[in-house]
Amino acid sequence: MIYSEKPREACGVFGIYGHPEAAKMSYFGMYALQHRGQESAGIAVTQNKSIVTHKGMGLVPDVFDMAQMDELEGKSAIGHVRYSTTGSSILSNAQPFVVHHKQKSYAVAHNGNIVNSHILKKELEESGSIFQTTMDSEVFLHLLIKNLKYGFEESLVRSVSMLKGAFSFVLLTSQGEVIGIKDPNGFRPLCLGKMNGSENQYVLASETCALDLVQAEFIRSVEPGEIVIIGKDGIRSLKPKVQAKRSFCVFEFIYFARPDSTIFGQNVYLTRKAHGRRLAQEAPVDADLVMPFPDSGVYAALGYSEASGIPFEMGMIRNHYVGRTFIQPTQSMRDFGVRVKLNPIREVLKGKEIIIIEDSIIRGTTVKTRVKALRELGVKRVHLRVSGPPHRFPCHYGIDFSTKGELIAASKTVEELRDFLGLDTLYYLSLEGLLESTGIKNPESHFCKACFDGCYPVDFDENMSKDCLERR
Amino acid sequence: MIYSEKPREACGVFGIYGHPEAAKMSYFGMYALQHRGQESAGIAVTQNKSIVTHKGMGLVPDVFDMAQMDELEGKSAIGHVRYSTTGSSILSNAQPFVVHHKQKSYAVAHNGNIVNSHILKKELEESGSIFQTTMDSEVFLHLLIKNLKYGFEESLVRSVSMLKGAFSFVLLTSQGEVIGIKDPNGFRPLCLGKMNGSENQYVLASETCALDLVQAEFIRSVEPGEIVIIGKDGIRSLKPKVQAKRSFCVFEFIYFARPDSTIFGQNVYLTRKAHGRRLAQEAPVDADLVMPFPDSGVYAALGYSEASGIPFEMGMIRNHYVGRTFIQPTQSMRDFGVRVKLNPIREVLKGKEIIIIEDSIIRGTTVKTRVKALRELGVKRVHLRVSGPPHRFPCHYGIDFSTKGELIAASKTVEELRDFLGLDTLYYLSLEGLLESTGIKNPESHFCKACFDGCYPVDFDENMSKDCLERR
Amino acid sequence: MIYSEKPREACGVFGIYGHPEAAKMSYFGMYALQHRGQESAGIAVTQNKSIVTHKGMGLVPDVFDMAQMDELEGKSAIGHVRYSTTGSSILSNAQPFVVHHKQKSYAVAHNGNIVNSHILKKELEESGSIFQTTMDSEVFLHLLIKNLKYGFEESLVRSVSMLKGAFSFVLLTSQGEVIGIKDPNGFRPLCLGKMNGSENQYVLASETCALDLVQAEFIRSVEPGEIVIIGKDGIRSLKPKVQAKRSFCVFEFIYFARPDSTIFGQNVYLTRKAHGRRLAQEAPVDADLVMPFPDSGVYAALGYSEASGIPFEMGMIRNHYVGRTFIQPTQSMRDFGVRVKLNPIREVLKGKEIIIIEDSIIRGTTVKTRVKALRELGVKRVHLRVSGPPHRFPCHYGIDFSTKGELIAASKTVEELRDFLGLDTLYYLSLEGLLESTGIKNPESHFCKACFDGCYPVDFDENMSKDCLERR
Amino acid sequence: MIYSEKPREACGVFGIYGHPEAAKMSYFGMYALQHRGQESAGIAVTQNKSIVTHKGMGLVPDVFDMAQMDELEGKSAIGHVRYSTTGSSILSNAQPFVVHHKQKSYAVAHNGNIVNSHILKKELEESGSIFQTTMDSEVFLHLLIKNLKYGFEESLVRSVSMLKGAFSFVLLTSQGEVIGIKDPNGFRPLCLGKMNGSENQYVLASETCALDLVQAEFIRSVEPGEIVIIGKDGIRSLKPKVQAKRSFCVFEFIYFARPDSTIFGQNVYLTRKAHGRRLAQEAPVDADLVMPFPDSGVYAALGYSEASGIPFEMGMIRNHYVGRTFIQPTQSMRDFGVRVKLNPIREVLKGKEIIIIEDSIIRGTTVKTRVKALRELGVKRVHLRVSGPPHRFPCHYGIDFSTKGELIAASKTVEELRDFLGLDTLYYLSLEGLLESTGIKNPESHFCKACFDGCYPVDFDENMSKDCLERR
Repeated sequence: MIYSEKPREACGVFGIYGHPEAAKMSYFGMYALQHRGQESAGIAVTQNKSIVTHKGMGLVPDVFDMAQMDELEGKSAIGHVRYSTTGSSILSNAQPFVVHHKQKSYAVAHNGNIVNSHILKKELEESGSIFQTTMDSEVFLHLLIKNLKYGFEESLVRSVSMLKGAFSFVLLTSQGEVIGIKDPNGFRPLCLGKMNGSENQYVLASETCALDLVQAEFIRSVEPGEIVIIGKDGIRSLKPKVQAKRSFCVFEFIYFARPDSTIFGQNVYLTRKAHGRRLAQEAPVDADLVMPFPDSGVYAALGYSEASGIPFEMGMIRNHYVGRTFIQPTQSMRDFGVRVKLNPIREVLKGKEIIIIEDSIIRGTTVKTRVKALRELGVKRVHLRVSGPPHRFPCHYGIDFSTKGELIAASKTVEELRDFLGLDTLYYLSLEGLLESTGIKNPESHFCKACFDGCYPVDFDENMSKDCLERR
Repeated sequence: MIYSEKPREACGVFGIYGHPEAAKMSYFGMYALQHRGQESAGIAVTQNKSIVTHKGMGLVPDVFDMAQMDELEGKSAIGHVRYSTTGSSILSNAQPFVVHHKQKSYAVAHNGNIVNSHILKKELEESGSIFQTTMDSEVFLHLLIKNLKYGFEESLVRSVSMLKGAFSFVLLTSQGEVIGIKDPNGFRPLCLGKMNGSENQYVLASETCALDLVQAEFIRSVEPGEIVIIGKDGIRSLKPKVQAKRSFCVFEFIYFARPDSTIFGQNVYLTRKAHGRRLAQEAPVDADLVMPFPDSGVYAALGYSEASGIPFEMGMIRNHYVGRTFIQPTQSMRDFGVRVKLNPIREVLKGKEIIIIEDSIIRGTTVKTRVKALRELGVKRVHLRVSGPPHRFPCHYGIDFSTKGELIAASKTVEELRDFLGLDTLYYLSLEGLLESTGIKNPESHFCKACFDGCYPVDFDENMSKDCLERR
Repeated sequence: MIYSEKPREACGVFGIYGHPEAAKMSYFGMYALQHRGQESAGIAVTQNKSIVTHKGMGLVPDVFDMAQMDELEGKSAIGHVRYSTTGSSILSNAQPFVVHHKQKSYAVAHNGNIVNSHILKKELEESGSIFQTTMDSEVFLHLLIKNLKYGFEESLVRSVSMLKGAFSFVLLTSQGEVIGIKDPNGFRPLCLGKMNGSENQYVLASETCALDLVQAEFIRSVEPGEIVIIGKDGIRSLKPKVQAKRSFCVFEFIYFARPDSTIFGQNVYLTRKAHGRRLAQEAPVDADLVMPFPDSGVYAALGYSEASGIPFEMGMIRNHYVGRTFIQPTQSMRDFGVRVKLNPIREVLKGKEIIIIEDSIIRGTTVKTRVKALRELGVKRVHLRVSGPPHRFPCHYGIDFSTKGELIAASKTVEELRDFLGLDTLYYLSLEGLLESTGIKNPESHFCKACFDGCYPVDFDENMSKDCLERR
Repeated sequence: MIYSEKPREACGVFGIYGHPEAAKMSYFGMYALQHRGQESAGIAVTQNKSIVTHKGMGLVPDVFDMAQMDELEGKSAIGHVRYSTTGSSILSNAQPFVVHHKQKSYAVAHNGNIVNSHILKKELEESGSIFQTTMDSEVFLHLLIKNLKYGFEESLVRSVSMLKGAFSFVLLTSQGEVIGIKDPNGFRPLCLGKMNGSENQYVLASETCALDLVQAEFIRSVEPGEIVIIGKDGIRSLKPKVQAKRSFCVFEFIYFARPDSTIFGQNVYLTRKAHGRRLAQEAPVDADLVMPFPDSGVYAALGYSEASGIPFEMGMIRNHYVGRTFIQPTQSMRDFGVRVKLNPIREVLKGKEIIIIEDSIIRGTTVKTRVKALRELGVKRVHLRVSGPPHRFPCHYGIDFSTKGELIAASKTVEELRDFLGLDTLYYLSLEGLLESTGIKNPESHFCKACFDGCYPVDFDENMSKDCLERR
C-alpha cells in the first residue's frame, strides 16, 4: 500500500488455549487480522514447559512455511502482526517478545501504546534492569518479573496497574496459560471466544473476524481493565480497581477494523453504513451518483446512497494486484501512484455531478490528485463527504499519525481544504453525528475522540498535557 | 486465487513502439493486465538490432526488478502475462518467445489458441523443422520464417492466413517494428493507442485499462483479420482476404476483462450492469437485499439492484490478502477455502431473504459451500441469479475450462443444479438477454457464444466438429 | 574464484543409461565435475517417451533441490555444467538443450567448440531453420533432425561428419537412449563406465572422477571420432570414416582436469608430478624451499621437490571460504583480492630463498601481486618455475582465453616477463619436456598444443588460418 | 562440512576502534575467522551514541550485503562468527548481543564457555533480572550493568572477577569504546593489533590471520586476565588480581587455529610440522609414502615426511565444492559421505604401504570408512599416526565435543581402536611429545590438556569436579 496516505494501526493480537494445533490456529487468526499490521508477524507457542517462537518481517504467509509450523507444536500459543512506524522497521522489534526467568518463560504480544513507559523504564534501569528493545511491552514484562514475588496473579494486577495508556495484551506462559489484558480505558478492541464444540479451548483476538476464520464462537469483549486468565481450570477474570473513563477508539469504527468484525459491541459494517446515512442527512447534495474511493469509503457510500436515493456506483476500479512492491515510474508519468491503484471509468463519470465518500483525510495529497484525475476525465462537479470529523490532533494511543504537521486539517479550515483539494463542496460528518450513529448509548462517555477534539483521556506527557487540558 | 473455481483466460499482451523507456511502459501495461495471467511474465525489447528478453514465473512485480529493467533498454518492446494451464506451468513456456534467423530476431506474445497448430506443426516437422516448446506461437514463427522468402509483409500475410482459431499477437522484430495481429473472427480483444502528446509512439494492448495506465490515448480496436505494422514511417495496416464471421468472446464481457476497460467498442462496467438490469426483468424476486460474491458479481448486482429497487449490500467481506500461498488448514477445519476468502456478516444477513448475483458457475463446488455457509449463519432464503446462460460446452479459443466433465451445467438441468447448490431459486440470464444487453447491434452476428450453445464458429478438430455441427 | 586469472574450460558432461535414479546419479556426476563449470547446471531425463529438463544458474547444489530431483524421475539422463564466457551468462544458454520433432525429443550437452558452426548455421537458415540460442549445440541438433530421413544412426553419422572442431557430446533421446560422441581429433576427454555390479547400466562422463563418485567402473575412453550408442540392447559403436590427427588437449593435464581423474589414458596427478620433476631437471636452482600457489601448482611442486631434494612447504595458506561473492573492499585496501585468497606465512618465508611452482601464467597480474606480497613479507629471493611453456596463442577448441591481448606471454619475452613479475629467475617447462613427461608414447602425434606453438590442428576460420599455417 | 566428525570451536571475535569503515573491516576480519564458526555472523557498530546491529544465520558473505554494510556506518565495531551447538542453532543466539541501559548501550561478542554462568544467572534472577537468551554472555552483561554504580571500569573489573571458565570477549559501548577481555587462565586466543600507519586505530581478533587480512600490525596477545580498553585516549590495560594457572588450549594448535595464525606466541603451521617431526621420532615405520587426509593433517604430514625421509603425497583429492548442502544419496550408495569429500587416487596408492597423518580422532567413523575405501582400492598396508594424544575427556571451555560417549578413545584402548579402524598400526603422539613440540618453554605449566588427561584447570561443576580431582 505504498501509495496510501492512510494512518495505520500498530498491531493485531491473537491467543489460543488448549488446541492441539495452537500455532496453526494462530496463523489463521493472524491471517484474518493481517489488515492491522503488514510489517512483521510472529507466533509463540508453549512446548515442554518452555516457549518456542518464530517471527519475521513481512506478511503472515511470507513469514511462516509448513516446516516452521511443524516446529511450533504445542497447545497454547499467541500471535502478533505489526505495522511499521517510521524507520524502526526491524526484526528485533517483532513480537511476540519472550523473556526467561527462573526456569519459566513469558511471551507477550501488544496492541496499543503505553504512554508512561519511558518513566517506568527509567525507574527500572535505576534498579539495575537492562533492556534489549525499544518496545514498551518489554517494560511490562520487567514489571511482571519484578512483582513475581507477590505471586503470579498479584504480579499481573500490580504490573498492569502501573501502566498508563492503551494496551491490549495477550500473554503466554511456559506453563501454557494464555492471558488477555485490556487497559482500563479500553482503547483497543480485544474479544474472547470459544472453539466450537470444544470443552476448554479458548481464543483471544483483536477482532471477531479472527474468531470467524478459526470457527470460534464469540463469547464477549474483554472488559476495560480486565485480566482474563485461561488455564487448565478454565477462565478466571481479575479486575484491578482502577477508575477510568471508557475510551473506545472511534477511529476503529471509521477505518481500522474489518467491516465483518464486531467491536465494542457493534458490527463495523452497519456502523459505517449509519455514518453514511447520517452524512446524507447532515450534508445532502443533488448529484448523479455517489461513489467511494475503493475500498475505504464503500460502506459509508452505500449508506449515503440508501438515505439519499442517489445511485451508488463504483466509478473507480481498483487494481487488486497493487500493494506489492513495484518498479517506480519515471518522472514523466504524472500521478502514477494514483492511477496504478485506481482507474476511473470515463463511460460512468464523464459529464456527471458526483458525490465521493471518503472515511478520512490525513495529508490530503492523494485525494487532491484523484479529484484532479476525475476532472481531467470530464467529471462536471465533485462533492466530497467525509464520514468523520476533521483530523486535527495526533493519536498517542497506538495509531501512527502522530505529528500535527502531517494532518492537513490541523492547519486549514474546511473551506481552505475544499479549495486545496479542488472540490466543489466538502463536508465532514459532525462529531455528534459520528458518535450517535455508532449505535452505542451515551456515546460521549464511551469513546476516545482525541484525534478530532484534542481531549486526551489519558495524559500522555507532562508537558503536552497542558495543551490537552486547555482544550477540555 | 487457489480456491477459485473460475475459468481463466490464457494471456494478456502489450506492445509499444518508439518510446525511450519501452520496457518500463511494458511493465506498467502488463501490471494493468495482470488479471489476465498470473503465472508468468516476460518482456522483449529491441536493442542494437537484436532482441533482449527477460521472463520469469510469477506476478509482474516479482519477475522484474530495477536491475533487470535497466538491462532492457530500447525503444520498442512487447510484454506478456500468462495463466497456467494444468501442469505445464514451466518457465520454458513463458513468453515472449524469441527466434533468430539470419542475423535477425523475432519475438512474439500470444493470447488465444490456434486450433490447427498440430496439423501445421506436423507439416513443418516433415520439412525438417524442430520445436523447443509446446506453444502454438512457435508454430506461427516457423511459418513466418519459412515465408520470409516472399518478403516480410507478404510472409506475415501468408503465415497468418494459414492459422485457424483465436489469436491476438504482438510481434517484435530486431529492426524495432511492433506488429499487432488479430484473427479474422476477432475472438480476443486487442486495441491500439497513441502515447499522449507524442509524434510516433504507439501502443498495443489486450485491454484499454493498460492504455489508461501508461497514459496512452485510445485510437481504435485492431480489426478482426487485421495486421497492424508500426515502424519508423508510422502505422500501416494489412488485411489478408479471409472470410470469417465476427466472433467476439462474450465471456470477456461477463468475466475476463477489467470493468474499466472498453473492449469490442463497449465499456465492460456498463455492460455488466446492463446484464444485471436485464436479469432483474427476466427473473424478478422479492427479497430483503441483493448482493454479489465479491468481486465477480459486483457490477451485475448493482444493475439488478437498480432495476429492482432492492437494496444492494456487501454481505460478504473479502480478505484482500488472500491470493498468496498459505499454509493449508487441517482436515478438521471445514470449508476453510471459502471462509478465508469471504466472510459473511451475520448482522447484515441473519433472518434475511437474499438475492445473490454471480457471473458464472463452472464446477459449482464453491457456490455450494458458500450457500451452505450463508444458511448456517441464519439466512432465511437464498435466490441465485447468474448473469449469463449455463456453461455447457468447453472453449477451444483460449479459455481454460476445456472439458465437459468440469462444467456442472453440462450434466444437470437448472432444477437439478438448484437442488445441488441448496438454493431456493436459481435463474440464468437468457442468451438473448445477454447478447441484447451488450449494447452491440445485431449481437447474434458478432459474438462467439459456443460455451453456451456449442456452436463453434471455427472447426477445432475434424472429429469433434460433428458434435458441433449437429448442434448448429 | 572471482580473483582468479586462470583460463576456464567451458563445460563438463555426464550421461547415464538404465539406472532407476538416473537424475540423482547425474547430479552426483555433475557434482564431481563442478570444477569444469560453475555458471549453470542442468539435467535432462527421459520420462514416458518424452524429455523433462531442469536447469538453472549457479552451482549444482544451488540449482537442484529434492523437489526438483523427485520430478526428474526416469532411467536415462544427461547432465551438464557450464562455465560462463564474458557477458552471455544467461539461463537460455544453459544446457542440456532440448528439441522436439514428430513426437520425439532430443537433448544434448556439449563440451567443446564447433569451429564451423557459423557456416553450418547460415546454410540451415537458408533452408528455413530458425534458432533460439547462440549455442553451437543447437546447430548440431538441427543437422540431426534434417538427416533423420536417413534413419537415426545414419543421421548421427552424417551430422557428426559435418562438424569441425572440438566436441564431446552426450545426447539423450525420448526413447531413452544415451549417446556419447567425440570429435575425430579427440580434443576433450570423455570416458565410458559401467555401474558396479549392474547388468546394463552405463555411464558417460568428461572425467573418471565422476565415475568414481557414482561408483561406476571405468571401461575405456570414448575414442576420437567414435559414436557410442547405449540402449536396451547394450552398447554399439559407430565410427564415421574421418581422417584426423589425434589432438588431445595438453592443457587438460596441466590445469583443467581433476588430479584424481585419468584422461587420455594417464592419471593427472602423476602427470603433474612428472612435469615438476622434469622442471627440476631443466631448471634447477638452489633454494631453501619449493612451494605452490595453492591449489594449482601443488602436484608439480611435489614433483620438483622430489627430484631436487629441496623441501616442499605450503608457504601460503588458502582461505577455503573464498569463492563466494563478498563485499568489495575499499580503495585503501591494497591487493585485497590476493590477500583474501592466500595468506603468506611470515614465519615460514622470511629471509628465505624460495622456488614457486605455477602451472600457467595468463595475464600475469595475480602472480605479480603475489610476488610483491612475498617480497614485502621479507622473502629474500623468488624463483618462479612454470610447469608448461608460455601461453602465446588463443584456444579455439573450447577454452576461454581466446584473444592474444589477454595472454601476457604473447607480447613479452621471458626476460621481459621476469622483470614485469618482479622475479629473480623465471623458467618455463619446454614443450618437449611437457610432452615427454605426459607418459604417452610419441606425444608429438597425440596432442593439441596450439596454445603454445600456434599450430592449430583444425582450421577454425578461413581468414585466421593463414596465421596458423605460417606457423606450421 | 556436513560429513565431518571433527570437533568445532564455538566462535571467533573481532573488534576495531577508530576506523572510518569499522563495519567493513569487521566484515573482513570475520571473513578471515570464518573457520571458527559457520553458523551465524553479526556486526555491531557505534552510531550517534547508540549501537546498531546486523546479524543472521549463515556464512559472513551470506549474512551481509552492501546495503547492510552502508547502514552500519561508524568508527567502532565488533563482529562475531559462531558455530552451532546441537539444536539451538537459532537467530536469537547469534551475537553480538546488545543491551540498553540509561541511554547507553553495550554489545558483546564471546568465544569460550563460562562454567559458573548457571549459578550467576540464578542469583541474578533472584534479584529480579530477566533473560532473553540462553547465552552466557547475557549473564556477563547483567553483571556489568549491576556494577555500573561503581563506575564503568570498576564494573568491568568486578564483573569479570565473578566469571569462571573460558572467555575471550570483545565489548563495544555506545560511547565508541572497544574492549578486549581474556579470562585469567587464557584458554582462548585473543590478540591486539594496530592498523598500519594509523594514529589511533586498533584491532582485536581471535587470531592473527584476521589482522593480516585487514592489514593491521600485530602488537601482542591480550594477556590472561587482562582487560584492554581502547578509547579516544588510546589503550589502557586493567588487570584484576586473580590467581590462575595459564591454560592455553593446546587443541587450538592441533586443529582449530588457521595455520597462518600466530597464537600464544607460536606460529601454528610450524607447530604442526613440529608435531609431525616428533611423531616420526616416536613412531617410525617403513612405508612407501606419507599422506594426510586433506586438509587437516597436511602440516603434520609434511613434518613427518621431513623427519623420516618418506615421500609426501596427496593420495586423496578433496572436492573443493563440498561443504554446501547437497541432495542426499540413496541407500544403495555406500559411504557416499566419504567419497564426495575425498577421492583416493588408485594410481598413487595401489599396492603401496602408506602412513596417514591425522590430527585427531573423535568418533572414529569417518576414519574407519576412509581406511576401508583405501583397502578396497588396493592399498597394501595402512599405518595411522595421530598428531596428538587420544581424546578421552570432554571439553568444558568452549569446544563442542562435550560427552564422553562421543569420544571413541574414551572407551577403547589404542589396540582396540586400531582393530576397530581396520589399521595395520596406530600410534598417538605422546602428551609429552605434543607439549614439547609446541616450542613453548615449560609447556606443562602453560596448557590446558584436559581433553587428553581429564585434569580440568577450572572446576566446571560441583558434582563432576570429583571425577576430575581424582585424576589429578
